[in-house]
Amino acid sequence: MTGRVDLVGGGPGPIDLMTVRAWRLLAQADVVVMDRLGPTDVRPHLQPGAEVIDVGKLPGHHPVPQDEINAILVDRARAGKRVVRLKGGDPFVFGRGGEEVVACVAAGIPVAVVPGITSAVAVPAAAGIPVTHRGVASAVHIVNGQSEITPATLAALAEESVTTVILMGVGALPRLVADALRAGVPPERPVAIVERGHHADQRTTRSTLAAIVIDAGRIGVRNPAVIVVGDVARAGMLVPDLLSARSGIDSRTP
Amino acid sequence: MTGRVDLVGGGPGPIDLMTVRAWRLLAQADVVVMDRLGPTDVRPHLQPGAEVIDVGKLPGHHPVPQDEINAILVDRARAGKRVVRLKGGDPFVFGRGGEEVVACVAAGIPVAVVPGITSAVAVPAAAGIPVTHRGVASAVHIVNGQSEITPATLAALAEESVTTVILMGVGALPRLVADALRAGVPPERPVAIVERGHHADQRTTRSTLAAIVIDAGRIGVRNPAVIVVGDVARAGMLVPDLLSARSGIDSRTP
Repeated sequence: MTGRVDLVGGGPGPIDLMTVRAWRLLAQADVVVMDRLGPTDVRPHLQPGAEVIDVGKLPGHHPVPQDEINAILVDRARAGKRVVRLKGGDPFVFGRGGEEVVACVAAGIPVAVVPGITSAVAVPAAAGIPVTHRGVASAVHIVNGQSEITPATLAALAEESVTTVILMGVGALPRLVADALRAGVPPERPVAIVERGHHADQRTTRSTLAAIVIDAGRIGVRNPAVIVVGDVARAGMLVPDLLSARSGIDSRTP
Repeated sequence: MTGRVDLVGGGPGPIDLMTVRAWRLLAQADVVVMDRLGPTDVRPHLQPGAEVIDVGKLPGHHPVPQDEINAILVDRARAGKRVVRLKGGDPFVFGRGGEEVVACVAAGIPVAVVPGITSAVAVPAAAGIPVTHRGVASAVHIVNGQSEITPATLAALAEESVTTVILMGVGALPRLVADALRAGVPPERPVAIVERGHHADQRTTRSTLAAIVIDAGRIGVRNPAVIVVGDVARAGMLVPDLLSARSGIDSRTP
């Protein structure tokens, strides 16, 4: 009997930011194929004997190549297993979920996708930053820092009413800033970097396009981080005293 | 004693696509302030005697103005209630959550935000459309159809590697298409419209920029709907036979 594969979005990290559907599938899974990002402490909630395969970390820290991940999913499902492919964030927001769907479909494996909470929205929120806000930001442009910077991204960065969200972009930040300034984006454009969003050691750095590279370097900003460019990123813009004092707004429930 | 307000993202509709945190807060709520979109059948899961206020629908179908919603949240919390403001999708993606946060903070009410699954990502996924896909789409531009079409949105529409997602855009579609064509966006650019995503009567219409207005008019496409413009919207692009036949991929779990 053929098994099945469910690509499950695990959200930004805290296990209670997974969906009820994700929990149910995890509780029934024979095999869980996990990532480096996303919820990492689901093991106590799996059924006894469930196999856990961590493809984000290997001895020597080499991640498993995508085609090997695809092969693992297909092989386990062919062996009749219920496989959950647990991904950080949402499977289709830079999660390479599409490739895993294609591999399963090509192999005749039943596959479904369960959306998850994307860090592109939830990590700024954890720092009190709404990616849209009436009268301030009416569009959101989401890019991966490891991609080329294209004219559409430069247009988003330049437009006052757009929030640009850059995932995994700390390494590319100097190049991104240089390109943006050269393209005429105002140097005073607000920038915030939220590291380890939704985790206990979350840290937010607020600056401007002109100053963010120096500020981030001085502070030692590192991935995983979400970079937000736009007026919503301004310290205290929404809530003058409270936001900047890190009180009064809190994305963690008590 | 002052109560509190939690702005909770309810996701695209199915109650099992709410987060565990959302469920826990709903189960403890004294007051639930609900929207027209998002999960609507949470009542059986609330504690006995919980007050439910539906601000999306009134006799006569006039939605409650935002400042009245803000006042309801503040007043109930001042009366010591635990208030859940349940919103469709994510509170900060065109959800006006930022305004509600500001109102609570200004009134000295403790407020927290619980992110939800945004329809901008989850509704295309329900139709088998990944908003990003390696080699096809490396950025996502999300806009509200009721906003002005800006140069950044036109740049996103024109760029092959960008997926543009338009929420609540059926009414604005003719204007959007005319503006895009005038700006030089290729008429053969793929467009998909997903109505009532994640509901039993979900329907996907696939077309091109040149033909979508006629196709949508003929079929009677209506909001709530998510419009996707970009190569990922092409029927059968990812999975030649199966996607277009609506089989092999399914965002609903069995």
